[in-house]
Amino acid sequence: MKLASLKEGRDGSLVVVSRDLQLACRADGIAATLQAALDNWDECERGLNAMYQRLNRGECAHAFAFDTAACAAPLPRAYQWADGSAYVSHIELVRKARGADMPPGFWTDPLMYQGMSDGFLGPCEPIELADEAWGIDFEGEIAVITGDVPMGTTEASALPHVRLLMLVNDVSLRNLVPAELAKGFGFFQSKPATSCSPVAVTPDELGQHWQNARLHLPLRVFLNNQLFGHPNAGVDMTFGFDRLIAHACLSRHLSAGTVIGSGTVSNRDESTGSCCIAERRTRELLNTGEASTPFMQFGDSVRMEMLDEQGRSIFGAIDQQLVRYKAAQLSR
Amino acid sequence: MKLASLKEGRDGSLVVVSRDLQLACRADGIAATLQAALDNWDECERGLNAMYQRLNRGECAHAFAFDTAACAAPLPRAYQWADGSAYVSHIELVRKARGADMPPGFWTDPLMYQGMSDGFLGPCEPIELADEAWGIDFEGEIAVITGDVPMGTTEASALPHVRLLMLVNDVSLRNLVPAELAKGFGFFQSKPATSCSPVAVTPDELGQHWQNARLHLPLRVFLNNQLFGHPNAGVDMTFGFDRLIAHACLSRHLSAGTVIGSGTVSNRDESTGSCCIAERRTRELLNTGEASTPFMQFGDSVRMEMLDEQGRSIFGAIDQQLVRYKAAQLSR
Repeated sequence: MKLASLKEGRDGSLVVVSRDLQLACRADGIAATLQAALDNWDECERGLNAMYQRLNRGECAHAFAFDTAACAAPLPRAYQWADGSAYVSHIELVRKARGADMPPGFWTDPLMYQGMSDGFLGPCEPIELADEAWGIDFEGEIAVITGDVPMGTTEASALPHVRLLMLVNDVSLRNLVPAELAKGFGFFQSKPATSCSPVAVTPDELGQHWQNARLHLPLRVFLNNQLFGHPNAGVDMTFGFDRLIAHACLSRHLSAGTVIGSGTVSNRDESTGSCCIAERRTRELLNTGEASTPFMQFGDSVRMEMLDEQGRSIFGAIDQQLVRYKAAQLSR
Repeated sequence: MKLASLKEGRDGSLVVVSRDLQLACRADGIAATLQAALDNWDECERGLNAMYQRLNRGECAHAFAFDTAACAAPLPRAYQWADGSAYVSHIELVRKARGADMPPGFWTDPLMYQGMSDGFLGPCEPIELADEAWGIDFEGEIAVITGDVPMGTTEASALPHVRLLMLVNDVSLRNLVPAELAKGFGFFQSKPATSCSPVAVTPDELGQHWQNARLHLPLRVFLNNQLFGHPNAGVDMTFGFDRLIAHACLSRHLSAGTVIGSGTVSNRDESTGSCCIAERRTRELLNTGEASTPFMQFGDSVRMEMLDEQGRSIFGAIDQQLVRYKAAQLSR
């Protein structure tokens, strides 16, 4: 099934969305919010699924037109956002460009950082940031939303804990990264709010494309309406979501609603383009000696979408504009 | 006023606690949970405060004995936990012990990492971890809980956003830290669940001890009932909470219920002891050439408390035992 949250209140209002993304129906009789549904998944899943089936058959009396612009993130605020960097050939490429060795452990031990989860942006909300000089970049990723995952869950038993999948735009401030990472404590200021696709879908929606804990379809990313990349998310993903979950829960329980990201989707095949500007700049540098594509400028737009084999949008599109954060907003 | 959450449901049940920590009263007529109160602080504060005044005067009809063992963390799950490292002389000491230079920027630019916030432990809950060899350590800290903080809020305007203060035990797995930090993405597996004091208090409870965005009282830490350290949290704190909040919100809004930590409380004066084992080991190494105090072992207990000038506990005590996380729990 497909679920979304309307922009109402801090946690949104849960709606079930039809497979073709045309219709929606409020789920408040089952769960008021997606977090509430995740907190009580075993009780809510059947009712939500029954509503989804009725909606797809056109039998939902209270259905209304689904509008992605009215969507908050599926989880407008979440309790955890753990972002991996599972396309290791991307890391290798970036390190090569700056002449850094590739520690062999990077191929066997996942990279993961703790991200900010208290405010995910909806799919059409503007990306508001104060300074272009920060080197504003998008990163197209796949993310899973888990149920409760007990500490110590192994890779072999992790996958049944995946409740939903969605797309995310993990915005990064590239020019703040080097100084921040040099301090040793990881990303903080260099990782502002992440944005999410309009709907999150259960794994069964993906059919044979969800295999081996990977989503085997191209992620299409557009910058200012020009195709920027379309790498297949199932190709060159060194660690599957099973492994990422096991990594995340080694020394902690993961509570329901934990979001775990793949890291920027990336294929070795250059012809598939890139899901972030930094990767394209890296390839430019390696191929021509100069990184010519600039980072985002105010007014730029970024769009991310994944289509099934019939060309139908699975998650709806992330479609955002970068705008300058204004000082006046500070007085609110 | 003083607020706590009883262990009921995922978010606890909000109670108001008397100043002397003897009595409590359910606040469900005002806000069911502390998160709900923080989400609507302007509407809830007056009612909670009125209940607190009645409780202190012994006029609360439904008051009951306050039991810290029944407490969850004030926020059993939160949307953000941003932990600073504001006692820079502690960092300098640790770096000196391993022969590392101290970057001058550490004195002017706060260190902060994004921590896991989806499961804070209550004050008397056991610390469950699977492996002593991870180098299990406690860290005694002060933390503030904020309301909504707009992106770009400056140090000068940050302090009114502080809603509550509490103590935290930021457990660290010292032997996992070096490899994790070497990967460059910061802490993840090396930072398991953090524990909180029974009550969180509004700044006015601290009187003249809350000054200059710092809490000027000793934090008393006991390992196996032996005093381990009692440094004054207002001494040698290089960055106040105003600066830490401004650092955290440079490129993001902070949503209500964000927890911001001071980092391990530490004084240059060695006679005040330490709030973590790592610091004591560092001093042993510098003074004697050998770090002799071991990290925690299963069965060890740690206690943290802060007393006012009359010897009365302000936040109640964190009082935890370290226990081995059992494989059987994985089947739950």
